[in-house]
Amino acid sequence: MAHINDHYLKLEAGYLFPEIGRRVEAYQAAHPDAPVIRLGIGDVTLPLVPVIVQALHEAVDDMGRAEDFKGYGPGQGYPFLVDAILEHDFRSRGVELEADEVFVSDGSKQDSGNIQEIFGTDCSVLVTDPVYPVYVDTNVMAGRTGGGDGAGYYEGMQYLPANEANGFVPAPPDGSADLAYLCSPNNPTGSVMTREQLTAWVDWARACDAVILFDAAYDAFISDPVLPRSIYEIPGAKECAIEMRSFSKRAGFTGMRCAYTIVPKALQGSDANGEKVSIHSLWARRQATKFNEVPYIIQRAAAAAFSQEGQKQTCEQVAYYMENARRVRDGLSAAGFTVFAGVHAPYIWLRTPEGLRSWDFFDVLLEKTHVVGTPGSGFGPAGEGYFRISAFNSRENVDEAVSRIQKAFS
Amino acid sequence: MAHINDHYLKLEAGYLFPEIGRRVEAYQAAHPDAPVIRLGIGDVTLPLVPVIVQALHEAVDDMGRAEDFKGYGPGQGYPFLVDAILEHDFRSRGVELEADEVFVSDGSKQDSGNIQEIFGTDCSVLVTDPVYPVYVDTNVMAGRTGGGDGAGYYEGMQYLPANEANGFVPAPPDGSADLAYLCSPNNPTGSVMTREQLTAWVDWARACDAVILFDAAYDAFISDPVLPRSIYEIPGAKECAIEMRSFSKRAGFTGMRCAYTIVPKALQGSDANGEKVSIHSLWARRQATKFNEVPYIIQRAAAAAFSQEGQKQTCEQVAYYMENARRVRDGLSAAGFTVFAGVHAPYIWLRTPEGLRSWDFFDVLLEKTHVVGTPGSGFGPAGEGYFRISAFNSRENVDEAVSRIQKAFS
Repeated sequence: MAHINDHYLKLEAGYLFPEIGRRVEAYQAAHPDAPVIRLGIGDVTLPLVPVIVQALHEAVDDMGRAEDFKGYGPGQGYPFLVDAILEHDFRSRGVELEADEVFVSDGSKQDSGNIQEIFGTDCSVLVTDPVYPVYVDTNVMAGRTGGGDGAGYYEGMQYLPANEANGFVPAPPDGSADLAYLCSPNNPTGSVMTREQLTAWVDWARACDAVILFDAAYDAFISDPVLPRSIYEIPGAKECAIEMRSFSKRAGFTGMRCAYTIVPKALQGSDANGEKVSIHSLWARRQATKFNEVPYIIQRAAAAAFSQEGQKQTCEQVAYYMENARRVRDGLSAAGFTVFAGVHAPYIWLRTPEGLRSWDFFDVLLEKTHVVGTPGSGFGPAGEGYFRISAFNSRENVDEAVSRIQKAFS
Repeated sequence: MAHINDHYLKLEAGYLFPEIGRRVEAYQAAHPDAPVIRLGIGDVTLPLVPVIVQALHEAVDDMGRAEDFKGYGPGQGYPFLVDAILEHDFRSRGVELEADEVFVSDGSKQDSGNIQEIFGTDCSVLVTDPVYPVYVDTNVMAGRTGGGDGAGYYEGMQYLPANEANGFVPAPPDGSADLAYLCSPNNPTGSVMTREQLTAWVDWARACDAVILFDAAYDAFISDPVLPRSIYEIPGAKECAIEMRSFSKRAGFTGMRCAYTIVPKALQGSDANGEKVSIHSLWARRQATKFNEVPYIIQRAAAAAFSQEGQKQTCEQVAYYMENARRVRDGLSAAGFTVFAGVHAPYIWLRTPEGLRSWDFFDVLLEKTHVVGTPGSGFGPAGEGYFRISAFNSRENVDEAVSRIQKAFS
């Protein structure tokens, strides 16, 4: 009988968000009239902006005309999108990249999950804690860890706690690691790294020859222009970092699927003989073999987000969600909660009241207010006693949720 | 320095199709006026049919309206698409599957590349030869083979030659394997398996507890209704087979990206302790962690292909390509070539003239006729001396290519 990948059996829980979905569904089945408001999964709710809708219609018409029809794309993304990415996300902030250092993909979840494949299974892995579960789970699946300890830690993985003491931004460790996952603005804590903090990480990575896997899926929510949006704004980062970005949150693309990953050609790893190998060539081979480009019409839609009008319209969406975040932050603060973040990220991170465990607060909140959030412990042990509230919902629902929480907990 | 995945260094060549692209580009650069006709990569050329274009426009409008906007999807595919798949691809042929045995994805390339992840690296792998390179390369990358022998064979992988003697459909081996990749209609040879041949494989798999990874991406091109289109038409296949299907060729979706994989709940593997484990649960966990659904608008387009009018329009496209195939087959046959297939598949497989090696014939053909095909040896050593011509192009280009080949080789 075919052997399975036994590493899968080490996984201690189902993937977090389907798990939340199941619990909410069970609650709704038992309480069909409960007016549930979902501030759990970070899923956008505003419709696509008009410029993007128009670009989609035009691209659809292209696909219906023989002379404009597009089959397989050019592999790493259409030049019209890649060029827009280079110009607006990098050149505008002083970063020069080559076109073939950009790999357009169908999601940062996919990229951050797949990127570990091109590294050896003997690489040591560092994550901050709490952390986006994909970084951990995909390394468990690949066999880079031992078993779990029942508390959410896997043997052989290095965890750096992100807590109130360090402002939810851990400094680099004293020791080394081969692969380090960083996420800024952070999911789930909503914290953001300053230039100094990010520089410390780049310096650390260069000193110990680590590769930083930098997830900047939420960069559009950074409201202070002084804060870095790309790790490549830090000198030396091209020699030590891969960066992932997404259209999911900045342009309402969670149901559209478009993202990209930057793998600089200056980045190197070593093979079994200690010879240096281009990481870029490995990722290019991986994508050519296991991926097949994002649909043409979706790429056209993503490019439209970079047009002058597209930037204006998508920025208005971001501002709408950030006003939601402000209302959650202020509202819960007024109700006596200790709240963090929600300023450079669409997430509010809060301390659970009365020292409740995260999942217990999840149940209490659902029961008392019919509001769904995400238990901090679902992101790792250091998230225990914390809770994430997403700002992605309608103003009306956010205001209603805040009002219910205030009534229930004040 | 971070260790790379050394298994990547075993790969003996770049992924086939980018390699062909590079050679054609170099030729075009040297001969800018050469009127190149591409019958190499199997890429559709007809525009999307009207019913699908209309469904796309409607879905785009949904995405632009708050009340109909869709963010993250339900995970394995929208019910409107999954139900259509169950009804039209399976129930219509007497096969009953459960909705959650269907996993909608962005491509059979991806699925056939990723499926090996859920199996142990100690699994023995069997492929037919020549073979779609993704099956081999992804297993090399995962470490299930030793090094290559320079001729295209990797140590530890089992190859069953598909040749003229067996009509390009190898019978199951005398020995066993853990994972066996089968593709029918076959890419690249264009051969198709009969019910008896497929039954022999299912019986073999059940006898030796192998898992068959059945790639039916070209099922729509089967012109004889007696031939099986799904492996689940064979009794016992749910206990031993995973099946992959695609909209790429049947509905002109190579630039749209939609496919699906069936993992029956009856399928089991074994863990390190010899305990039985549900393969379905592993794939569900893999997809929940590393994938994020196909865009809503693409799923709506795929569902439209199943409507009454959608079936009519897409069948007309398939018939158009198959008439191309007939013209290539007859035209090259008249020119003295020994040709195979092109009846239940959009590919013509031909013996190269005068015993030329496949890549030499690629060069001669490009030089003499400016026609691009695919060297059989690019799919594996047993493809040496053979050549694949794709029927995916306009009638005009196909006729012109045939005419040029006849002039050059008659």
